[in-house]
Amino acid sequence: MAKLAKIRFGMIGGGEGAFIGAVHRHAAALDGQFELVCGAFSRDATNNQSTGDTLGIDDARLYSSWQQLLQVEASLPADQRMEMLVIVTPNQLHVPISRAAIAAGFHVFCEKPAGINLPETQTLAADLANTDRLYGLAHTYLGYPMVWQARQLVQSGQLGTLRKIFVEYPQGWLTEDLEAASNKQASWRTDPSQAGNSGCMADIGTHTFGLAEFISQQQITEICAELKSHVSGRRLDDDGAALFRTNGGASGVLIASQICAGEENALKIRLYGDKGGLEWQQMEPNTIILRPHGAPVQVLRAGKGQPGLGIEALRRCRLPAGHPEGYLEAMANLYSDFAVAIRRGERGTPTGVPGIAAGLRGMAFIDTISSSGQSDAKWLQIPNT
Amino acid sequence: MAKLAKIRFGMIGGGEGAFIGAVHRHAAALDGQFELVCGAFSRDATNNQSTGDTLGIDDARLYSSWQQLLQVEASLPADQRMEMLVIVTPNQLHVPISRAAIAAGFHVFCEKPAGINLPETQTLAADLANTDRLYGLAHTYLGYPMVWQARQLVQSGQLGTLRKIFVEYPQGWLTEDLEAASNKQASWRTDPSQAGNSGCMADIGTHTFGLAEFISQQQITEICAELKSHVSGRRLDDDGAALFRTNGGASGVLIASQICAGEENALKIRLYGDKGGLEWQQMEPNTIILRPHGAPVQVLRAGKGQPGLGIEALRRCRLPAGHPEGYLEAMANLYSDFAVAIRRGERGTPTGVPGIAAGLRGMAFIDTISSSGQSDAKWLQIPNT
Amino acid sequence: MAKLAKIRFGMIGGGEGAFIGAVHRHAAALDGQFELVCGAFSRDATNNQSTGDTLGIDDARLYSSWQQLLQVEASLPADQRMEMLVIVTPNQLHVPISRAAIAAGFHVFCEKPAGINLPETQTLAADLANTDRLYGLAHTYLGYPMVWQARQLVQSGQLGTLRKIFVEYPQGWLTEDLEAASNKQASWRTDPSQAGNSGCMADIGTHTFGLAEFISQQQITEICAELKSHVSGRRLDDDGAALFRTNGGASGVLIASQICAGEENALKIRLYGDKGGLEWQQMEPNTIILRPHGAPVQVLRAGKGQPGLGIEALRRCRLPAGHPEGYLEAMANLYSDFAVAIRRGERGTPTGVPGIAAGLRGMAFIDTISSSGQSDAKWLQIPNT
Amino acid sequence: MAKLAKIRFGMIGGGEGAFIGAVHRHAAALDGQFELVCGAFSRDATNNQSTGDTLGIDDARLYSSWQQLLQVEASLPADQRMEMLVIVTPNQLHVPISRAAIAAGFHVFCEKPAGINLPETQTLAADLANTDRLYGLAHTYLGYPMVWQARQLVQSGQLGTLRKIFVEYPQGWLTEDLEAASNKQASWRTDPSQAGNSGCMADIGTHTFGLAEFISQQQITEICAELKSHVSGRRLDDDGAALFRTNGGASGVLIASQICAGEENALKIRLYGDKGGLEWQQMEPNTIILRPHGAPVQVLRAGKGQPGLGIEALRRCRLPAGHPEGYLEAMANLYSDFAVAIRRGERGTPTGVPGIAAGLRGMAFIDTISSSGQSDAKWLQIPNT
Repeated sequence: MAKLAKIRFGMIGGGEGAFIGAVHRHAAALDGQFELVCGAFSRDATNNQSTGDTLGIDDARLYSSWQQLLQVEASLPADQRMEMLVIVTPNQLHVPISRAAIAAGFHVFCEKPAGINLPETQTLAADLANTDRLYGLAHTYLGYPMVWQARQLVQSGQLGTLRKIFVEYPQGWLTEDLEAASNKQASWRTDPSQAGNSGCMADIGTHTFGLAEFISQQQITEICAELKSHVSGRRLDDDGAALFRTNGGASGVLIASQICAGEENALKIRLYGDKGGLEWQQMEPNTIILRPHGAPVQVLRAGKGQPGLGIEALRRCRLPAGHPEGYLEAMANLYSDFAVAIRRGERGTPTGVPGIAAGLRGMAFIDTISSSGQSDAKWLQIPNT
Repeated sequence: MAKLAKIRFGMIGGGEGAFIGAVHRHAAALDGQFELVCGAFSRDATNNQSTGDTLGIDDARLYSSWQQLLQVEASLPADQRMEMLVIVTPNQLHVPISRAAIAAGFHVFCEKPAGINLPETQTLAADLANTDRLYGLAHTYLGYPMVWQARQLVQSGQLGTLRKIFVEYPQGWLTEDLEAASNKQASWRTDPSQAGNSGCMADIGTHTFGLAEFISQQQITEICAELKSHVSGRRLDDDGAALFRTNGGASGVLIASQICAGEENALKIRLYGDKGGLEWQQMEPNTIILRPHGAPVQVLRAGKGQPGLGIEALRRCRLPAGHPEGYLEAMANLYSDFAVAIRRGERGTPTGVPGIAAGLRGMAFIDTISSSGQSDAKWLQIPNT
Repeated sequence: MAKLAKIRFGMIGGGEGAFIGAVHRHAAALDGQFELVCGAFSRDATNNQSTGDTLGIDDARLYSSWQQLLQVEASLPADQRMEMLVIVTPNQLHVPISRAAIAAGFHVFCEKPAGINLPETQTLAADLANTDRLYGLAHTYLGYPMVWQARQLVQSGQLGTLRKIFVEYPQGWLTEDLEAASNKQASWRTDPSQAGNSGCMADIGTHTFGLAEFISQQQITEICAELKSHVSGRRLDDDGAALFRTNGGASGVLIASQICAGEENALKIRLYGDKGGLEWQQMEPNTIILRPHGAPVQVLRAGKGQPGLGIEALRRCRLPAGHPEGYLEAMANLYSDFAVAIRRGERGTPTGVPGIAAGLRGMAFIDTISSSGQSDAKWLQIPNT
Repeated sequence: MAKLAKIRFGMIGGGEGAFIGAVHRHAAALDGQFELVCGAFSRDATNNQSTGDTLGIDDARLYSSWQQLLQVEASLPADQRMEMLVIVTPNQLHVPISRAAIAAGFHVFCEKPAGINLPETQTLAADLANTDRLYGLAHTYLGYPMVWQARQLVQSGQLGTLRKIFVEYPQGWLTEDLEAASNKQASWRTDPSQAGNSGCMADIGTHTFGLAEFISQQQITEICAELKSHVSGRRLDDDGAALFRTNGGASGVLIASQICAGEENALKIRLYGDKGGLEWQQMEPNTIILRPHGAPVQVLRAGKGQPGLGIEALRRCRLPAGHPEGYLEAMANLYSDFAVAIRRGERGTPTGVPGIAAGLRGMAFIDTISSSGQSDAKWLQIPNT
């Protein structure tokens, strides 16, 4: 059997003070499939150098801009240059960098949302239709084993015909005016020039939408929303909620808010059909509450080899039940599937990883809910993507 | 000190097979303040007799109709006749019996909703403006100590300025077509001639609305709703959700559904202000989760003499913390306050008990949300009452 | 059908400032089967009078001593005199009053423990062998529906052969020297002349023991204990733990403590057999966690008509699932069964109510664990009773 | 700033079918500080080769025995040879390999327990007293941030003087005779020639003991235990419990069992002092329940930058609150501290990592509790180590 070589990747963004860059680095490392070989971590030269040093990046491959990174890496010998680029910048750079990286011959794994609006993201989608490079979107929560198990429970008919979907993501971290206090995370997320047309909905609303569509295997087709900005002077929405309808006849409620004081990342989804319901919460990710109609509630638990779990959940568990796996493991599951896809020579979307289709759906959601928040019309259609 | 005599009450409705009648009887008995002396429990003579026998009601005071009950009781000597009438019929009789009972000189404690629509209920309100009789509305959940504690936490400013209110009441019992199976509870609640214009919203939506207004001390002024009937042939809504806004600048989401398979009575409310949030759930009624912004979550617990509770919560606890009190105790708290009001000679609404004002608010809600469910307009105003 | 007349009962103890007397009065009232007609609530005349007034007791039947109560009541006409005596005094009076009341022709419902030691309690047992009066012991927790359901799950073999029993009751209320602060509850419980040879074990250890034997349907035959008194000057144990073995081959651990700061009444039992385990907690009394070996955990829920519950659990539920019932309802279940037993003319122990057999077991436990706490021998036998 | 080079490590044990080897590899990889360069993963040549291939180990450094690994690696140039050895074999090899590796000049990170009995382990301790190599013991649970926070809460006096410690670890995976079914994990753990004198106590009892001593900062000095083997034919204990006393005046209960059907890894510890109590559970590792006496319960939560956490907890969090970290992150924290210790040139025990002192304590515990299980004496002293 041939030895497995690690996949070389580079990173744009993720310097000191950023959040998600470190998540990607831990996740990429966890299963020993990847090696970080280059980066342009910050436009601040000191930060960039310091981050590179901490990560043990060769100075020759520590770049001052994303353009330089792409140009130089593309010129390196095939057995040295990076194979995959991870993009963890603010939103406004997602599409430009993704397009350039694909054009330069690299696989791309990009943070969500895919872009700043739907039309821009469609230009990326067009490029992707004509390339053999892989493109993945880092919807971390879709790497959790029990999210896949929930999807399988729906698919196998255990809930019957879906009637209701309630999905919510209350956070509290933007309760105060953190951007005024120069909090780096808050600043770009509330700046339209970096985040796009939406704050809360682009940041976490898109998670609720994506999770609902992923588990239900239905498309949300109409929404009726109210968006708000509760903190004086804040330039983008920090809170919102919507009624919605799906193409499968279900209806539901979507809540995303960053001003729910005292809440952490309480992403939760409940689905109900005519045979039962289920519930999953991100902060207890290894558990599904299954509520069969007319029978006792069951508590399904993640775990390697756990009886009763489907194959998709099982293959995303590293440890037997009772050894909690968490957020980094969820992201690492996306990386593992990306690695397999690279090694198999897959094209388009890596099996098991959200891709441009999910990205377009998310952008259509963000654009539509932003419009709905400002519209007197009750229902707005989410465009087909 | 004078001996306390028990208050004599009668009951209309609540025969065998009913649900809420027994709740009232247990609750009235619990604190030893009331004595059931008469009733017209069912239009079915056999049921009526059997219920009366089980309850030890004297045959002479077991009546075949509510009209007979009022007439005969009114003619009895003052030291024998009932003092208070408890109305536990389907909705369409709430106003007619309430008005007749008040006119006949009795205090009234009526199940919610107050009537079948707002105009009808306003006729009762007009009568109540000109009587010295007491009228209470049996919003059981407003008898829980920790609901009062939640209200006090809001009032005392511990949450700061309220921004968000999420209130939900998912039930699963109408997942199937129980009315077709002659389930007594299901049949009248889905019958417009008995329940009024709404099924789910009249039955439990009104609890979510009332709880939100009670704890927040704000009025919900605008709603945007979708109502559905998921079971084929069902004549009234069994599910719905709404976005809403309050007169205090808060916004929120209200969910009430009876087709959430596997759910019991999962009434839950969360409120968030700029200083913190709180959460209360009916199925763990002795606990409030308090989330101060920037400090650890606190778990407040009901209990006689419990440090840190306000006077309104404390006086509704019979037992020290750790001895769970439940639904019957919540209802009994309404009865206890009604007893005090009778003994003190209060007029209008018994202190501590929801009255006609809450009843009118509830009817305005039911009417408006029913309209909203059928309207293309995004926001409908809830009329002042 | 004959009208049901209420059963007349009297109470000794339970004056203002007491805890359990009020519990009994609420519980007796809840289902409308009992009427409190007389009492000797306190040796303090003011307290006695005030309690009697609040409860609406006729002055003629408000007695200054338990001896007077028994004497006078026995002399009243049969259709007026009390039928059952409820004893809610400190422990040292349990046996003397029980024996006198039985001798005077009354049924007795007595607080636990049955007496102050095993030999004394055996004198009562001897009396009871020769009477047609009923004797019940108020082990409140044995009135919870889900305690009966747990017992039935064991009995039906769902856990297989029992291997382990863990039962614990941590409380925190005696963390400080409350008896020095004249706390009435603390004072008598830590006074050997009133409580007997044990404090914590007599007060709550006996609950853990009784619950374990009740659910497992095995007898604890050997124990190895350590008892402690953590508060300086306290005269009886406030804390203890024991290893134990049963006559069915199981083993386990029993913990009872009143100095676990911050705990309320966290009585909890877990049983494990070779086919599965179960867990029940007093503070979430309507739920059993059932853990079948090799299959998902199930959450069984109390409720009237709830599918899957056994007859014993079902008949102890007043309300459908989702309407929490609590501590008072558990005690009321004992009263309801006592009422049925009186009406049926049962003798000895009322069906469904713990009786003198449980009382003797409890006293054997208290005596043995007290001895074990002072013994260098590893295992002490609990005597047959 | 100098680039950080990865630390090269080798592994003995951990071939396919093993559990803890993969845990170590994930944990070592997570923070990017280590590189696995060699291994002797299995005595089965096929397994060894296959494991090495999967892990990308150079064939030249894939060894057929631990002796060969030590010999060859020691002969490599300093900039190539492994620096640290990870030992994940059955217990009987822990001391022999550790001693040989130390003698050969390598740092050692060994799975618990440190050896098969106390005298054997003391020979290792003697060696360690005369070396500049580092030795760490992989008590994974001591890597959890909230375990450190619990320790700090005790240390800072928030619980007051400790009175009670309850620690328990119920598992269910040995409910059946898995060793008869050739389960690799079960087979060696129940084989005295590989596991030593104890099964359950060596495997998980040692976790309960170590956790209790670590958080309380007291030593358990006396124990009184019962050990059992519930499965017919099993050669070592699969279950046990003990009363214990500490050198700080506290007492408590320790439970470890592998036949609690349906349980996963429910390790839990509660500590109570005269000012409050706290609770931590391994399956919800990011939460501490803090129960101040006379004030509401607080829920402390792990998270980077979380207000109120001590420095030791904070530096073990990678992610803000609400992003669950788990078992692999706990182990990774031990690796990170080991990396720092190597880079700093520490000697003896790496700061933040359990070392030989904890190893000796654990062996003293295992030996004593095994003796106690067979002894008629009530209390046995745990020897000083």
